[in-house]
Amino acid sequence: MRYVLCVQYDGTDFSGYQRQERGERTVQGELERAASAIFGCETRVAASGRTDAGVHARAQICHLDGETSIPAERLCLCFNRELAPDLRVIASAAAPEGFDCTRGAKRKTYVYSAYYAPTELPLFSRYAARLQECPGISPMQAAARLFEGEHDFRAFCASGSSAKTTVRTIYRIEISEIRRGTLSIFRIYVTGNGFLYKMVRSIAGELFAIGCGKPLAPLEAALAHGDRALLAKTMPAAGLLLDRVDYGIPLFAGVNG
Amino acid sequence: MRYVLCVQYDGTDFSGYQRQERGERTVQGELERAASAIFGCETRVAASGRTDAGVHARAQICHLDGETSIPAERLCLCFNRELAPDLRVIASAAAPEGFDCTRGAKRKTYVYSAYYAPTELPLFSRYAARLQECPGISPMQAAARLFEGEHDFRAFCASGSSAKTTVRTIYRIEISEIRRGTLSIFRIYVTGNGFLYKMVRSIAGELFAIGCGKPLAPLEAALAHGDRALLAKTMPAAGLLLDRVDYGIPLFAGVNG
Repeated sequence: MRYVLCVQYDGTDFSGYQRQERGERTVQGELERAASAIFGCETRVAASGRTDAGVHARAQICHLDGETSIPAERLCLCFNRELAPDLRVIASAAAPEGFDCTRGAKRKTYVYSAYYAPTELPLFSRYAARLQECPGISPMQAAARLFEGEHDFRAFCASGSSAKTTVRTIYRIEISEIRRGTLSIFRIYVTGNGFLYKMVRSIAGELFAIGCGKPLAPLEAALAHGDRALLAKTMPAAGLLLDRVDYGIPLFAGVNG
Repeated sequence: MRYVLCVQYDGTDFSGYQRQERGERTVQGELERAASAIFGCETRVAASGRTDAGVHARAQICHLDGETSIPAERLCLCFNRELAPDLRVIASAAAPEGFDCTRGAKRKTYVYSAYYAPTELPLFSRYAARLQECPGISPMQAAARLFEGEHDFRAFCASGSSAKTTVRTIYRIEISEIRRGTLSIFRIYVTGNGFLYKMVRSIAGELFAIGCGKPLAPLEAALAHGDRALLAKTMPAAGLLLDRVDYGIPLFAGVNG
């Protein structure tokens, strides 16, 4: 029997999603430890995709195979008794026929959060990166349009990726700004059919740089020819959140998973 | 020369504002250690009021006396080189003539944040308490009106307070709710001329209980006769934030302090 889980985590104290050989604390490692305790045998937990060290997830989607008499909707409670407070299974259900959380993911939305303020702000730094300069939102929104559509994003992929192809489709990038006195908070929502290693953080870095006056030519060259030489720096992990994964079918009754 | 500081902290890893004899980590202790390093002599740092262990502050106001050639507006940068990332001086200035951050505080606003969701949510639990039941906002808003005005709040004061009088004025309580699927996020803004030990957390607990169907009579008895016997439980510290302190005069140029 296959179960689907909706998982939320504060990534600060995790070495990313994927289980590591060297004993680092990972989301997959913690979920599999809990699953093995619940099912009484070694149990693998698959995810829609990995998240890097320090990256957060509001609604990561996972699946696992196992046999238990516990009702599927109550499985999340069993997990949460085994997990530390920075990792929670927020919903569980029987998986639809033929469901695979990795291959079935149709679109994912990540949110990158950053703030500009004269000093670091302790109440923001866990979930947002600090910008050294305050970008203008209009040039960022104009540049966001260039990313949309199908492109070869190899210039936006950090080395170390094992992806077979670097072609991806970005459906939409939305950028918002909230101002409060000398503080500006920016959020970049990126929805696509999949993302390469550090791709969202690389896109966010380029957009913030363009907001601070960087010309568009290096971005155009990166999208057209894969030229990464003049791209801005990748943004830090703490500002990144996996917001949602869509499969084209509802997975959980009554949950905005 | 007197300086005024605007201080932000994530209270999670502090044993409250006030310096402790037993070596616990406190906001005052860390600020005084930094101030003593900057001014080259033992320096006391006063605050608008104490915050309890685990309570956060967006804009706590402090003052200190010392002599330095560092421009007042740049003093915050010197502090931040000495402080850990969960505590920052976000603005500094020369204090106005006769300024006292403790006695001069005219009104303070605290925000209590809580959420209702089927499970704990790791991305919320650092700054909001989880409610076991989802309250209705209308009865909470109606009950909030009873707190407003001048009252003897001794029923809402935890034992251990050294306050001379338990009479305080609450100017305004505002409550907001944001819904996202099965998640509801509540914020209670309480503005008053001062607050007793655990008073805001006690008020928040009573308001959430009333939102879940508790009758008004115990609240009315508590406000009229100081009867605390039937009041709801005090809410946990993590949901509480000192949002702002007003002195009736601007303290920092261009900062929403």
